[in-house]
Amino acid sequence: MTEPNIARARDLEEGAILHLDFTKLVKVAQTGADVLPVVVQDADSLEVLILAYANEIALQKTIETGIASFWSTSRNRLWVKGETSGDTLEVVDIRVNCEQNSLLFLVRPQGEGACHTKGCDGKARRSCYYRSLRNGQLQPIELR
Amino acid sequence: MTEPNIARARDLEEGAILHLDFTKLVKVAQTGADVLPVVVQDADSLEVLILAYANEIALQKTIETGIASFWSTSRNRLWVKGETSGDTLEVVDIRVNCEQNSLLFLVRPQGEGACHTKGCDGKARRSCYYRSLRNGQLQPIELR
Repeated sequence: MTEPNIARARDLEEGAILHLDFTKLVKVAQTGADVLPVVVQDADSLEVLILAYANEIALQKTIETGIASFWSTSRNRLWVKGETSGDTLEVVDIRVNCEQNSLLFLVRPQGEGACHTKGCDGKARRSCYYRSLRNGQLQPIELR
Repeated sequence: MTEPNIARARDLEEGAILHLDFTKLVKVAQTGADVLPVVVQDADSLEVLILAYANEIALQKTIETGIASFWSTSRNRLWVKGETSGDTLEVVDIRVNCEQNSLLFLVRPQGEGACHTKGCDGKARRSCYYRSLRNGQLQPIELR
């Protein structure tokens, strides 16, 4: 029997039905973690890979190690991307926006892909943005 | 005499001193707006232009008009990007991430630039990410 939350994750991740979680930021704030959004972009292909969150600890860790580290807003702890999967992201550059309230990491992926989901080939998808919203439905796109 | 908040905005936007606002998301949540982060990327150059926030109203407006609309988290109202400056962003594609808690807009800028700040040429900067964090300082970068 499938666990309800596993079934739900599969629907969200692989389904065609749009079910956006507009409460995400409120839930992030409720954890009490002072985090900023971090856009993660491939330094070579310029593909946007993931959006994650960082606090001062995660940013400092990223600067010290050169490996993208975030603050896990679901587990409320430091999250070195790829620490279990091996799919680490080498950080080439850190950019700061005009108002200094978001970050952009330019990275070189060291493993299979940046997304925790897997494509048809059984490998981690390169980017989390593998679906396009068309006529109210989610359609898979070919990642470059 | 310069207003303190104007002086502060200039320091944040044009200065070399890193002064990240890690309380941004908590402040967004406090407005009570159910918003998601939206990464905005140039569909042709693939440059990341801005990070903004959208609620259901802003997403619906974007879909209906084909022009990027967000929810202004400072003014707590619908914000059609470029409504005053003319620097609108035509939306070519809307991508949704694996967990359906962030969006990626692929856009074609119709005006000067996506950032509200101006570069040395007096024109709106193309992207908000015009500074790189190096040795603890912010350094201007050449936007492609």
